[in-house]
Amino acid sequence: MARAGGETDIIQRYFAPLAAGTPGAFGLSDDAGLVHPPQGHELVVTTDMSVAGVHFLEDTAPRDIAYKALGVNVSDLCAKGAAPSVYLLSLALPGTPDDKWLEGLSAGLAEAQTDMACTLLGGDTVRTPGPVALSITAIGLVPSGGMVHRAGAQPGDRVYVTGTIGDGVLGLALLQGEQSNLSKQHKAHLQKRYWRPRPRLQAIKVLRDHASAAMDISDGLAGDFAKLCKASRVGGTLRAADIPLSGAASAWLAEEPGRLGAVIAGGDDYEILMTVPEEATQSFEQDCRAAGLQITCIGHISAQRDGVKVAGKDGQPLHLEHQGYEHF
Amino acid sequence: MARAGGETDIIQRYFAPLAAGTPGAFGLSDDAGLVHPPQGHELVVTTDMSVAGVHFLEDTAPRDIAYKALGVNVSDLCAKGAAPSVYLLSLALPGTPDDKWLEGLSAGLAEAQTDMACTLLGGDTVRTPGPVALSITAIGLVPSGGMVHRAGAQPGDRVYVTGTIGDGVLGLALLQGEQSNLSKQHKAHLQKRYWRPRPRLQAIKVLRDHASAAMDISDGLAGDFAKLCKASRVGGTLRAADIPLSGAASAWLAEEPGRLGAVIAGGDDYEILMTVPEEATQSFEQDCRAAGLQITCIGHISAQRDGVKVAGKDGQPLHLEHQGYEHF
Repeated sequence: MARAGGETDIIQRYFAPLAAGTPGAFGLSDDAGLVHPPQGHELVVTTDMSVAGVHFLEDTAPRDIAYKALGVNVSDLCAKGAAPSVYLLSLALPGTPDDKWLEGLSAGLAEAQTDMACTLLGGDTVRTPGPVALSITAIGLVPSGGMVHRAGAQPGDRVYVTGTIGDGVLGLALLQGEQSNLSKQHKAHLQKRYWRPRPRLQAIKVLRDHASAAMDISDGLAGDFAKLCKASRVGGTLRAADIPLSGAASAWLAEEPGRLGAVIAGGDDYEILMTVPEEATQSFEQDCRAAGLQITCIGHISAQRDGVKVAGKDGQPLHLEHQGYEHF
Repeated sequence: MARAGGETDIIQRYFAPLAAGTPGAFGLSDDAGLVHPPQGHELVVTTDMSVAGVHFLEDTAPRDIAYKALGVNVSDLCAKGAAPSVYLLSLALPGTPDDKWLEGLSAGLAEAQTDMACTLLGGDTVRTPGPVALSITAIGLVPSGGMVHRAGAQPGDRVYVTGTIGDGVLGLALLQGEQSNLSKQHKAHLQKRYWRPRPRLQAIKVLRDHASAAMDISDGLAGDFAKLCKASRVGGTLRAADIPLSGAASAWLAEEPGRLGAVIAGGDDYEILMTVPEEATQSFEQDCRAAGLQITCIGHISAQRDGVKVAGKDGQPLHLEHQGYEHF
């Protein structure tokens, strides 16, 4: 393996180009970055860490690792109604940094930056005796008072999701070697959805204008819906039959209906779950169409005493073995 | 070992109390934190990752790990003239989180928060098959235009440092089992200095008012001075005889003068290196006294063509085997 140079060298070669367009990054040659928030704006800040062997398979291409690591952070910003602005990357590398690996990582970040409208502000590169780990902190902008919260759903609100649910967890199953009779295209679609979360930037303004509550779906729809309801002190029902599926996920479920639970509770969706007051749904749906944002109404919010459930086709609550991904 | 609960449980028990005083943290129950910068201010943002076995010994008390992890970040903010405000913590934990360990970590963060005038805004807790790792992003405030840069030193400027140099690297040597005839108190002092960096909050305003350039000393005085000179496109000389030493470090060097190089290039000082225009030195020194900040003039800045050197007692350049800590 070609060995990359020292820390300063690595920063200048692989990371400084990612910060070239960032005012306040100073070419990554200072000790900190500077953020100048436009007047009347607040900053939304989120952080997510990805560890090899936990958040991605050990043999994953560095380009994909990078894209996803930034994507999961920017997805959080979008769900809060915040426009992505800058991010910081802390990178822990096993002993011998490899030029080709670092090139791939840098290329993946470059691609993600373009897709996600943000640039690098700063970071830290350290050595680790353990697996590769990336910790990203992403910073977005909202007009003051505009952040969309997890708590805020009210009884009577409609529940919506963006995009399609379950592709990520099915893509992971394929990557882990599970057999399936899906077509090549369907398989490719699911794996790509696992690797390339596409934060819903089109949702940012629509959420600020209409949503009573929102969060991004990372640990599974059912579990994340329960979290949103808990934070809002409400109950709610999701209708399993209305949950939007891709062609690939539909094909898989047609063959193996028992996997529905995994789809609903699987995680790695990086879609947005949101609630909208009933009287606002018409203008909300109109604005989503105008923004090119695919959304589906999948349930409603009720009083806390009604509890949180997922209703099957017969209207009876589905029993889910797990509601979502637990990290411990 | 007592096993701590799931992720939500860990957050509520050990981290939410650290965010109780943070406006915009929402009790750590939302997906992101919110920062509302006061009008006329900018945000200085820095990130540093600490990995067990690299940045701290595997058997280190969690309280010390936490204190130092926050300290090294806040030290960066202080050196930039920024008042610490909030921080985010990403924590990677090996398989089975242990209640006692997490309690210690939380207590160390609580202690550090008080000493360093900042509170928790958010974070992420993940599992790792590798060693414990903490990635902290710290956010500070400066009046717009007030950030102190690494580039900015001018020929003729005086070079100052806060506190004393070399305690950290000598403390680490003791922790790694090196023998020495130092007194118990001296040993304790050096180890404490390694474990408990005390960011120089008293320096924040003085730096903004007087310094032409500054950085915190984390990778060794000689190497960090060379970085500051390079960024500022100047040369400079440090006078070894003037470098401030603690009683413990002086006692060690009296016994083993050959260790001077290690002291100058060792790292883990978390003091501030700064340059001050000659005409400002008097009011600078006055303001430092008023702020209770110990500083020492240890050199001067010259033209770039003169190069960067450390002069020994005889005025001749010292030869240093290493200038500072290189991460790869």
